[in-house]
Amino acid sequence: MEELFSDEYFMRKALDEAYAAFEKDEVPIGAIIVSKNKIIAKGHNLTETLTDVTAHAEMQAITSATNYLGGKYLPESTLYVTLEPCVMCAGALYWSQIGKVVIGARDEKRGFQNAGLQLHPKTKIQWGILEKECSQIVKEFFQKKR
Amino acid sequence: MEELFSDEYFMRKALDEAYAAFEKDEVPIGAIIVSKNKIIAKGHNLTETLTDVTAHAEMQAITSATNYLGGKYLPESTLYVTLEPCVMCAGALYWSQIGKVVIGARDEKRGFQNAGLQLHPKTKIQWGILEKECSQIVKEFFQKKR
Repeated sequence: MEELFSDEYFMRKALDEAYAAFEKDEVPIGAIIVSKNKIIAKGHNLTETLTDVTAHAEMQAITSATNYLGGKYLPESTLYVTLEPCVMCAGALYWSQIGKVVIGARDEKRGFQNAGLQLHPKTKIQWGILEKECSQIVKEFFQKKR
Repeated sequence: MEELFSDEYFMRKALDEAYAAFEKDEVPIGAIIVSKNKIIAKGHNLTETLTDVTAHAEMQAITSATNYLGGKYLPESTLYVTLEPCVMCAGALYWSQIGKVVIGARDEKRGFQNAGLQLHPKTKIQWGILEKECSQIVKEFFQKKR
């Protein structure tokens, strides 16, 4: 068990979302958004289910969180996401001015860093929380697909 | 009047969407998606109305078009958008593998080119269709705001 409200604690909740995606035969990526130690939004990849390339975990979580808070910006919120956001999601995070982003595993190929992008100057970033588990679930998914 | 089914003809339809945004006091950017000379999706910026930074014209049009077609990819479709897509929208267009993107005016500051990004290798790009009108409506909007 992780310590209550630690980064590992919340990343475990994002991993739960990734497992939910896995069970739907979706690329297993999960995200949650936390404000004042409360989970205000959850999402997992649903691109196949919704036949919508924009239905990434982070996009759904951002939309859901801003809807909950009633404002466009998320300066006091933290996103926990199991895999490094892609260009699209990094762009959305930029617009949201989110306070912090906590990332599980890197995505060497499609991650925003490989595209030369940075998040908003106001956004803090923490890498590598539960990295092994976050990476492993994606590997298992693609091994199963072969 | 523009020639039927020309790039100018369809960009005029995207401009109609931008005007609809203007009337709602939204940053006036519009987009449509065309497949086989038929408009299959329309969208205009609704970030304020929906308090959602992801509600850009292009994002809505992509979601709507793939929903209409019943498939995640848009290789035989063309997006007409009045202003150069941002990083988020360029990322979504990448995932969609859209056949062609026709852009009205450049966005020197927030456009994807300034961020060093490229669209999908399979995506053709046409710049500067009705550029003056597409640029003018955005300028008028921000002048009004001052």
